[in-house]
Amino acid sequence: MAQPDRSQDGVPRRQFLKHSVAVLGAGGLAAASARGAGAFEPPETPPWMKVPGAGMSEYGQPSKYEVGVKRTGIASRPGTTGSGVSRTPLEALDGMITPSGLHFERHHGGVPDIDPAKHRLLIHGMVRRPLVFTVEALMRYPRISRINFLECSGNSGVLYNPTPPSLTAGQTHGLVSCSEWTGVPLRMLLEEAGVEPAAQWILAEGADAAAMSRSIPMAKAMDDALLALFQNGERLRPENGYPVRLFLPGYEGNMSVKWLRRLKVAATATMTKDETSRYTDLQADGKALMFTYPMEVKSLITRPSPGRTLSGAGLYEVAGIAWSGNGAIAKVEVSTDGGKTWAVAPLVPPVLPRAITCFRMPWKWSGSPAVVKSRATDSTGAVQPERDKFIGEHGHNAVFHYSAIQAWSVEANGEVKHVYA
Amino acid sequence: MAQPDRSQDGVPRRQFLKHSVAVLGAGGLAAASARGAGAFEPPETPPWMKVPGAGMSEYGQPSKYEVGVKRTGIASRPGTTGSGVSRTPLEALDGMITPSGLHFERHHGGVPDIDPAKHRLLIHGMVRRPLVFTVEALMRYPRISRINFLECSGNSGVLYNPTPPSLTAGQTHGLVSCSEWTGVPLRMLLEEAGVEPAAQWILAEGADAAAMSRSIPMAKAMDDALLALFQNGERLRPENGYPVRLFLPGYEGNMSVKWLRRLKVAATATMTKDETSRYTDLQADGKALMFTYPMEVKSLITRPSPGRTLSGAGLYEVAGIAWSGNGAIAKVEVSTDGGKTWAVAPLVPPVLPRAITCFRMPWKWSGSPAVVKSRATDSTGAVQPERDKFIGEHGHNAVFHYSAIQAWSVEANGEVKHVYA
Repeated sequence: MAQPDRSQDGVPRRQFLKHSVAVLGAGGLAAASARGAGAFEPPETPPWMKVPGAGMSEYGQPSKYEVGVKRTGIASRPGTTGSGVSRTPLEALDGMITPSGLHFERHHGGVPDIDPAKHRLLIHGMVRRPLVFTVEALMRYPRISRINFLECSGNSGVLYNPTPPSLTAGQTHGLVSCSEWTGVPLRMLLEEAGVEPAAQWILAEGADAAAMSRSIPMAKAMDDALLALFQNGERLRPENGYPVRLFLPGYEGNMSVKWLRRLKVAATATMTKDETSRYTDLQADGKALMFTYPMEVKSLITRPSPGRTLSGAGLYEVAGIAWSGNGAIAKVEVSTDGGKTWAVAPLVPPVLPRAITCFRMPWKWSGSPAVVKSRATDSTGAVQPERDKFIGEHGHNAVFHYSAIQAWSVEANGEVKHVYA
Repeated sequence: MAQPDRSQDGVPRRQFLKHSVAVLGAGGLAAASARGAGAFEPPETPPWMKVPGAGMSEYGQPSKYEVGVKRTGIASRPGTTGSGVSRTPLEALDGMITPSGLHFERHHGGVPDIDPAKHRLLIHGMVRRPLVFTVEALMRYPRISRINFLECSGNSGVLYNPTPPSLTAGQTHGLVSCSEWTGVPLRMLLEEAGVEPAAQWILAEGADAAAMSRSIPMAKAMDDALLALFQNGERLRPENGYPVRLFLPGYEGNMSVKWLRRLKVAATATMTKDETSRYTDLQADGKALMFTYPMEVKSLITRPSPGRTLSGAGLYEVAGIAWSGNGAIAKVEVSTDGGKTWAVAPLVPPVLPRAITCFRMPWKWSGSPAVVKSRATDSTGAVQPERDKFIGEHGHNAVFHYSAIQAWSVEANGEVKHVYA
């Protein structure tokens, strides 16, 4: 055919066919794995077909065989129960959506137990008409929905370390998740309150024990800021800000203030503890950057990755995720030779701005040691940098906004390790 | 401005502004609901800010205040525990994605407790090379992801009744849900097995106690059929076919055979019990249709809907969902006068083929009785029919493939009722 037959999935069909032929050429994955089962007769009727199964349930849960798939790296500051993080196990997941039960957590004073009937949201400061909203009132407003990633600015911070940590993909990069967020455009409520012309900032405060607070630029508030009420179709989970959170697409996660109780319109930034003592980016030259909002273009191979051992030479899929706080993913390139050569990996549609985008590419592994890397480019033309270049600019003392290319080495025995390469 | 400033959310910004002005004009929703809270001072510091919150968790759950949001209408056939349905509470949700815990269920022999290490998938019959796959082998294949709805062909079957049932939107229409499905293209495995040229059908059999079985046309199998392994990012839930299910985008739900254990390639349809005694569509003339695959274009207003009482005249959002097994949603029209006049409702992007598409439109309710309806058109040009026309063609004895326009009446007291209108 003259034109590649590109399916709705964005994968050229010819590539799939070629891929399939490669599978056949390799002797087949299926036959190789038909251990103990006759290849030409139906396997024996399994025991679970001989008894009635379980009934319907009001709210479903994962299979008991998947209990190992859980948030990892749960850590709290000494003496606290809820000031810390939990991470999304990226290496065990596949797709654009993160199930809400596995969305990463970052709390500064734990998850408050908020009665939605008693929760209030105040808009005050430089407005013509201060307003107080009940949750019931917020639920009556018009809503929008967007699929957006959320990334903690401290995600991958451990990779500023001079030596590569022995951690999984989720443990290094699992402070990023992606959900469908539905709620009320903040702009609509600000217009109802009537923002004074000189107001350039909004202080956003959470109803947690830390009163987590950040200054939000008015331009962002009036652009795509959301008061999120729903996450992946249902009401927000407690650890994601129930009953209402601010959501700022593409911006560092802590600015999307959870358990939102107060928006104070102001002329200047408030310089809260959370934007002075924390969430500033110490650079190699000793200076610190403040108000670094968008999370940079970034990508990661999740398959293969540490803990996902390859079972011998043959055909595999190299797959992973990419995202950018500045727009859509335009391109992901994959290298299996440590960055000497790169191939463009097909992206999985829909490719949405400020959302996780999956990439997937077939890879015939020879069985020799290899180093795999991915390099993302976003719609602004920004390209994910190699680690050497990134560390040269930012140094080893930073914690936030790490976005360099991630390398995994595949050993001859199929084991996958974290390397700086 | 000359061009409407359409945001990435597909809602014309001018409409939002106009909308917001309408809110102001109506005296504001916020002030009206600031019951007991001072409008110009921050509400008192709530008790949950005065104590440390809960810590991180390995797998999150909904808020305890949302326990009422659950699958509804759980019903099993007499003498069985798992032959029946549970329904998605559509009226309590918002967005394109259905959380997996609330995805509807339809089982014929309950949910089998399948050990993935012992599960096998057989491909046999008219193939050059019969194959047996372990789950581990399937997990190694290249994958694709798609956001697709799944609808039981019996969804809304109660609406064939001559009188309108007093049920919620979820209870009438909740056998439809939408997820991101990720897995292996079936075509790839069929090509590996080598399908004989005369083979036109595939028998798909589940590993449940009912050995649920359907005949799948080869054309669909070779087009967009998926062996789904992941749902909304994580491995399939048990009630949705763990460890592997067939997924046929747009086709009636029961054909997407769960707990898939066998695919037998054949020259003709097998005429299984599930496609002769069941899942055939009895028509008004006494004849029955077999092999009616795609679910027709359909839509539903979820807000307002029964159980969601309006609190007096004023501005509301009319919102709902639309879907078609034959393509993408092209248009949704909304009427608030029982179908005399219609307005085109903005669709929430991304508008994807064979996925739930949300529509949302502002509505200023006068406080007088009203009847709201939605009418969807899909990318093939098919238009959702009025109930009278639909019942005229299909009669009252059918159960499956009900897809007529749904009407809700809004009473003067704000109560919402199911009507045939």
